[in-house]
Amino acid sequence: MADSVSILGATGALGFGLAIRLGRAGTPVVIGSRDAGRAAEAAGKAKAAVPEGSFEGLENAEAAQRSDVVILSVPFRNQSENLTNLKGVLREGQLLIDATVPLAAAVSGKATRMLGVWQGSAAQQAQEMVDDGVRVVSALHTVSAAVMSDLDHALDEDILVCGDRKADKQEAMELIQRIEGLRCVDCGRLEMARITESLTALLIGINVRYKTHAGIKITGV
Amino acid sequence: MADSVSILGATGALGFGLAIRLGRAGTPVVIGSRDAGRAAEAAGKAKAAVPEGSFEGLENAEAAQRSDVVILSVPFRNQSENLTNLKGVLREGQLLIDATVPLAAAVSGKATRMLGVWQGSAAQQAQEMVDDGVRVVSALHTVSAAVMSDLDHALDEDILVCGDRKADKQEAMELIQRIEGLRCVDCGRLEMARITESLTALLIGINVRYKTHAGIKITGV
Repeated sequence: MADSVSILGATGALGFGLAIRLGRAGTPVVIGSRDAGRAAEAAGKAKAAVPEGSFEGLENAEAAQRSDVVILSVPFRNQSENLTNLKGVLREGQLLIDATVPLAAAVSGKATRMLGVWQGSAAQQAQEMVDDGVRVVSALHTVSAAVMSDLDHALDEDILVCGDRKADKQEAMELIQRIEGLRCVDCGRLEMARITESLTALLIGINVRYKTHAGIKITGV
Repeated sequence: MADSVSILGATGALGFGLAIRLGRAGTPVVIGSRDAGRAAEAAGKAKAAVPEGSFEGLENAEAAQRSDVVILSVPFRNQSENLTNLKGVLREGQLLIDATVPLAAAVSGKATRMLGVWQGSAAQQAQEMVDDGVRVVSALHTVSAAVMSDLDHALDEDILVCGDRKADKQEAMELIQRIEGLRCVDCGRLEMARITESLTALLIGINVRYKTHAGIKITGV
């Protein structure tokens, strides 16, 4: 059996979509939520959507310890609090895939605008806040939550991955590419996440104007 | 005959690629350069590449007055100076398509990093600096100059267009889409250019890592 992945914030739309897609691809998924009850409920919903999948619902900190790879898929408003709660919880060598996007919506602004993050990006904030030895990679900002959670929708788009070490990115890419129709593109160091994160705001605007669920593809790769 | 377009900075790689592609599409092109001699030389080169095209080379300010649509395709280092030189030159109603990218390379930094522009983006700086009544649209940041200038290369990618008025964007899109293989996507107001401009830096990094000339496509549109 493949190693499991823990998804914190998997009761949210993107996290839940990731959970069922990865579950369908044969990866056991630990669903994390602030509330253990809501996590268990989401695990039940995931199991109903993908009966062949393995899903378990746990409170975030407990979920985070259950897998070598942890995906953080929470609103920016809660990212810092979540990372504080993970201090002393994540262990050396674990890989954290941060999918947070600092949309201005976090402070009641527009979802088509970005906040400036002191560290440069949400991913760099994550890197600063995790314990030493936890590896951080940034990914999964451009795939629509609606499209991810709709298993009948055939995906065909790219996932832009940033991180400071090639091996970490490779590990994240192998996990994400278990999902059919997703191809990962190495977008450079973690600092480049300020660009890939901002694509969410761009795509949200496109979604409104074109009444669609847009994504990104890099041509020529 | 179709209305002409003036391309300022068309002795540069992207501007020249645009010139020959638009010329091949049947649009008369006025090639602008700081130096009238270099402009004439580039027009000659363009004519050699596309014998059926119409090309004229003029000093930038003169070139700018020759068409209703002007494309500004200069390094960020020179954008402000170019716009200053266009004061009192561009007339009300003209459409300026700004393709400038504030890469950190402009101040001897990396081409994979961006500068912060006080107004938010190079396009917004252009909007602030042009005379009243000149309309500014932002576009053409993600198409590779190398690919544009290689007429044997079949294009198949998107051009992300930002601007404050729909009609202005429509006009720019119709012009750009004369080039076979380019599709324009409306990316919202001019302020969104800070995101589309930054994609150049992202793609430059991808080009290095994957030894390619990458571009962007928006899926689901």
